[in-house]
Amino acid sequence: MPAAAVSDSKTHKFNPNFTAQVLAATGPNVNPRVKQLTHSLIQHLHDFARENELTVDEWMMGVELMNEAGRMSDAKRNEGQLLCDVLGLESLVDEITYKLATDAADEPTATAILGPFYRHDAPKLEMGSCIVHGIEGTGDRTWMHGTVTDFKTGTPIEGAVIDVWHTAPNGLYEQQDPDQPDMNLRGRFTTGKDGKYNFYCLRPVPYPIPFDGPAGKILTALDRHPYRPAHIHFLLTAPGHKPIVTQIFDRSSKYIDDDAVFAVKDSLLVDFNPFQGDPNAEFELPYDFKMATFADAKEGKLNGSTEESASL
Amino acid sequence: MPAAAVSDSKTHKFNPNFTAQVLAATGPNVNPRVKQLTHSLIQHLHDFARENELTVDEWMMGVELMNEAGRMSDAKRNEGQLLCDVLGLESLVDEITYKLATDAADEPTATAILGPFYRHDAPKLEMGSCIVHGIEGTGDRTWMHGTVTDFKTGTPIEGAVIDVWHTAPNGLYEQQDPDQPDMNLRGRFTTGKDGKYNFYCLRPVPYPIPFDGPAGKILTALDRHPYRPAHIHFLLTAPGHKPIVTQIFDRSSKYIDDDAVFAVKDSLLVDFNPFQGDPNAEFELPYDFKMATFADAKEGKLNGSTEESASL
Repeated sequence: MPAAAVSDSKTHKFNPNFTAQVLAATGPNVNPRVKQLTHSLIQHLHDFARENELTVDEWMMGVELMNEAGRMSDAKRNEGQLLCDVLGLESLVDEITYKLATDAADEPTATAILGPFYRHDAPKLEMGSCIVHGIEGTGDRTWMHGTVTDFKTGTPIEGAVIDVWHTAPNGLYEQQDPDQPDMNLRGRFTTGKDGKYNFYCLRPVPYPIPFDGPAGKILTALDRHPYRPAHIHFLLTAPGHKPIVTQIFDRSSKYIDDDAVFAVKDSLLVDFNPFQGDPNAEFELPYDFKMATFADAKEGKLNGSTEESASL
Repeated sequence: MPAAAVSDSKTHKFNPNFTAQVLAATGPNVNPRVKQLTHSLIQHLHDFARENELTVDEWMMGVELMNEAGRMSDAKRNEGQLLCDVLGLESLVDEITYKLATDAADEPTATAILGPFYRHDAPKLEMGSCIVHGIEGTGDRTWMHGTVTDFKTGTPIEGAVIDVWHTAPNGLYEQQDPDQPDMNLRGRFTTGKDGKYNFYCLRPVPYPIPFDGPAGKILTALDRHPYRPAHIHFLLTAPGHKPIVTQIFDRSSKYIDDDAVFAVKDSLLVDFNPFQGDPNAEFELPYDFKMATFADAKEGKLNGSTEESASL
């Protein structure tokens, strides 16, 4: 328990033994990591309630918001995640997880949050394919290409799968938009021996995160806008390498300094270059991904396979 | 922001500006109480994540638990509330709310958590009615009676509504149990000029809170039992008086020192006295309720009508 939290608890006017009593209810047969996380969460929640003299009505408003988020969540939408996102929590745990895995000076590609719009089983496509369907003449066709390498050796990685997804020009992901074909603007590409990849997509646009639910209520209550700067999502996997969840951001996009979910990192800013000579693309976007082997990524709970990891 | 939390933030190895950046996104047109609560919550959540080096996988497990709780919640069940209950949060905000309202030495009846099984619109019954239906010969029939008075003047309160609910001998509330009649073991009784009330109920039993959802997962993970000591719930309302949400506990019940939701208070312990001469009851339970006027309850956010109160 952080000493700071305990001293807070001692200066308030409420039952000084209450939190200790709740923590003491924990039995002996508890996973140490589960105990650490749950006890710390209880301490913080209780300190939060006492420091702010949280009333029953205010607490119940929070419970209803959480329940509403859960009811809105399904295979196509994760409102609980979105609620965390507008509070900066997903970007923070992303930073923590990345930092724990990465101590090298010459770092692998930085990570960014998965976001609530990832879908499993995007179509497996041939290199050079186009992931844009049912959208005509937007003037924003982009040829994206690059190489996936091992960040330490520089060796191209064979069999790396680049799973990509982004929004349509109307700012909607396909699962939010009945007018788009299923799995539009999504695809999975597998590298050959040279580690190279290339495909056609769109230069994305800023868009508002959905604000018809609890996350929107929080944004409205905090007098905040719901916009994200233009970005493309990636999930990279490769044999023997640590997966990378990331996004790349259009450096010239509106909201680049003011992302509603706080995901922008300097190393993930990219430039869309005007592109001549290809009738299928107005822009070119070169981008190389650098992955770490599991051995180079710091061992431990990140690999999801240690005794220490929490599970419920 | 508590100084303690800020100093925690300064000693970690992560982006030292991140939380400030999230807080700075708040616009100028924000209710001060909403700002206070949200900013404090963000600070605590971020400190929690950093202090424990929370990983993306661990955070996502929490999100899924929250979403699952929301999906299980409806008019008959509030799993988000139950999740808070096993972490002690509802009992804590109940204590805070009660303390804010009560400074007097001779205090009104202590409060206890509402719990997730309250239902609106319980049947309005005549004094002396029995709320037990479809349950035969358990040997635990109880005649409960007493007076509702103003805690300061001692005057009986006319028009006080006593809304009562408790579990059946099988440990289930009627909405959990298809074999019980709708609204079984619930009733609302309105006092006359003498402030007196009386009705027949059962001497309740300890029971496990539902553990087929996220709250049960938490209990299992913490190696804790799900039992509550025997208790009867009340919601008291009366013209001009502050409502009282409370429970009274059978002093001799198992789990009286080890309530899964931490709701027991000494002043709410009662004795079921063996009762002779009434063919309808084996026990007698005398209990007087003491209510405070709104004027005597400390004014402020408790009345739910001040500008300070948070709303979304």
